[in-house]
Amino acid sequence: MASNGSDEAPAKRIKRRRQDEDGFYFKSYAGVSIHEEMIRDEVRTNSYRLAILRSSEQIAGKIVADIGAGTGILSCFCAQAGAKKVYAIEASAIAEQARKVVKSNGMEQQIQVIQGKVEDVELPEKVDVIVSEWMGHFLLYESMLNSVIYARDKWLKKGGIILPSKASLYLAPITNEEIYKERIDFWSEVKSKYRLNMDCMIPYAKECIFGSVQIEDVIGSDLIAHEREVATIDISTITEQELQSIQGSFDFKCFGISKFCGFAAWFTVTFDDIQDRDPVTISTSPYKHPTHWKQSVLYLPEPVSVEQDTEMKGLITLSPGMTNSRYLDVALQYTVGEMPQISRHYTMSDDYPS
Amino acid sequence: MASNGSDEAPAKRIKRRRQDEDGFYFKSYAGVSIHEEMIRDEVRTNSYRLAILRSSEQIAGKIVADIGAGTGILSCFCAQAGAKKVYAIEASAIAEQARKVVKSNGMEQQIQVIQGKVEDVELPEKVDVIVSEWMGHFLLYESMLNSVIYARDKWLKKGGIILPSKASLYLAPITNEEIYKERIDFWSEVKSKYRLNMDCMIPYAKECIFGSVQIEDVIGSDLIAHEREVATIDISTITEQELQSIQGSFDFKCFGISKFCGFAAWFTVTFDDIQDRDPVTISTSPYKHPTHWKQSVLYLPEPVSVEQDTEMKGLITLSPGMTNSRYLDVALQYTVGEMPQISRHYTMSDDYPS
Repeated sequence: MASNGSDEAPAKRIKRRRQDEDGFYFKSYAGVSIHEEMIRDEVRTNSYRLAILRSSEQIAGKIVADIGAGTGILSCFCAQAGAKKVYAIEASAIAEQARKVVKSNGMEQQIQVIQGKVEDVELPEKVDVIVSEWMGHFLLYESMLNSVIYARDKWLKKGGIILPSKASLYLAPITNEEIYKERIDFWSEVKSKYRLNMDCMIPYAKECIFGSVQIEDVIGSDLIAHEREVATIDISTITEQELQSIQGSFDFKCFGISKFCGFAAWFTVTFDDIQDRDPVTISTSPYKHPTHWKQSVLYLPEPVSVEQDTEMKGLITLSPGMTNSRYLDVALQYTVGEMPQISRHYTMSDDYPS
Repeated sequence: MASNGSDEAPAKRIKRRRQDEDGFYFKSYAGVSIHEEMIRDEVRTNSYRLAILRSSEQIAGKIVADIGAGTGILSCFCAQAGAKKVYAIEASAIAEQARKVVKSNGMEQQIQVIQGKVEDVELPEKVDVIVSEWMGHFLLYESMLNSVIYARDKWLKKGGIILPSKASLYLAPITNEEIYKERIDFWSEVKSKYRLNMDCMIPYAKECIFGSVQIEDVIGSDLIAHEREVATIDISTITEQELQSIQGSFDFKCFGISKFCGFAAWFTVTFDDIQDRDPVTISTSPYKHPTHWKQSVLYLPEPVSVEQDTEMKGLITLSPGMTNSRYLDVALQYTVGEMPQISRHYTMSDDYPS
């Protein structure tokens, strides 16, 4: 009967202390499979590899900090790019494996693996480069960017660089009536299947499913308007304070007649290129090659009919979860055509498996 | 980067107190999706419905306790079978929904939903019937049977019945070389993909993947010998003490030449039939219609060649997890042909997502 997912029952929330949050979070990176999944994602890993090797002019002979180094793969890429020293900081027990990876590639002189939380670790010197793969689902789930900011403010030399340097969040309205058939109509079908009326479960099913962020592979052709960039994060300057509330407005114009079912969100991250080539970018767009991040969807409780050029305007706000700062709360305010403004809240957590 | 699964890194274990275990466990039943998954499983739900309706002679006019009632669906089936009173006991917040289900089916006179842990609840009377869907993956994951035993010893009248009344655990050797290609060879392929040697991750990958129970859909044709029933649990008499160690021996004779990759485990539960018809049985065998329980696999670190009539003999022991009694530890001792005896341990937990 055990299952996994991300529904949220807002009624009963148990506050965990920050220490517990971190303990649970870091344990989730101790097993092998999460690292396999990330390294298997070639869009992710090849982009980091390419961006690091292309930055070899800035990395060669320099000091690097890899924030949340995992198996150490990005640290090794930095060593291959000629780094003089890489501090590979990793809080979970996978750090032990990173040490082996470093050794078996003969990089012990260059890379020092340090097991500990970024916030607890001391480095013997400042660094020229920070590299980190900190992005979670919906960009900010897991709140790992906070540790990158902490490292930047404490260790990065003036004029030092951060890889990647920029992140952007995109939003687009989508259609996907299947979700209502699959997840909501199910409860009406119990009557014919088992001779029992479970229609009364529908409001709760809607509350759970349409009150939480759904992580799924959105089909490009389900977009009913062009996407908008709703927020940009400059990783060189963003503050922890600013991350408490990332806000952006949007304004869509629908392609044609369709059923508007929700908003899909995704992100890109960009690595600066000093040689003025097109910068390396990881895109998690539904139009691009799928990544392990998939897309994030904020569904409406029921579809809304739209026509060609129907306008949707609104505001999206992302903030750390109220019950656990590694979770994510999403607030939406929007209008569709001439209809009155609507406000919705979505949570993203693993507290309430679905 | 968030992911889900069941690998286990044995190095660092954090002890949770029993209270925390339960809090986390019951929260996992608060969302809608786990109930949708269970009710969607027609093998499960139809079998319970049929067994309850067929037992109407023993249920009509009687007092019933539904242990871990969830959305209340089994309690409603009991009401349809003519129960005079059903106590639907449910610890998680889904109890609130069960009340609505009861009401919208006009069964408030018959069914009383009680939100609380079985161990904390008081009933005003003894019961004639206990019904419960307590089975987890590998039968005993989640340890919910303990609560059924507690309820039985406290509330069940002498001569009362339990639905289901019997559970059996089965084991069979399987072949599945894909697992090594997919999960282990992956680490060797990093060399050609990203020009980095990650072969040294292989022992750790094996430790994680082949040291934990894998939940998957086993293909019937992957069985390389007939299954054996390794344990039977009589739910009317089993004690909590006996559940601390469920042990069974096995003796397989291989069909023919193949690569032995591990043991698949599954279970059946049986509902007694007083009219001497074939009893209703839920089977989670790989030869039967798939259920949400799937099968559980204990993989070997590498395949072993076997021939026709190669014998495998051994002993399997299931016990509650050392770090969390809702988890499961599995110990295997076995011989293959004339090879020396081998001992392996497997853990089943959600502490270390894979």
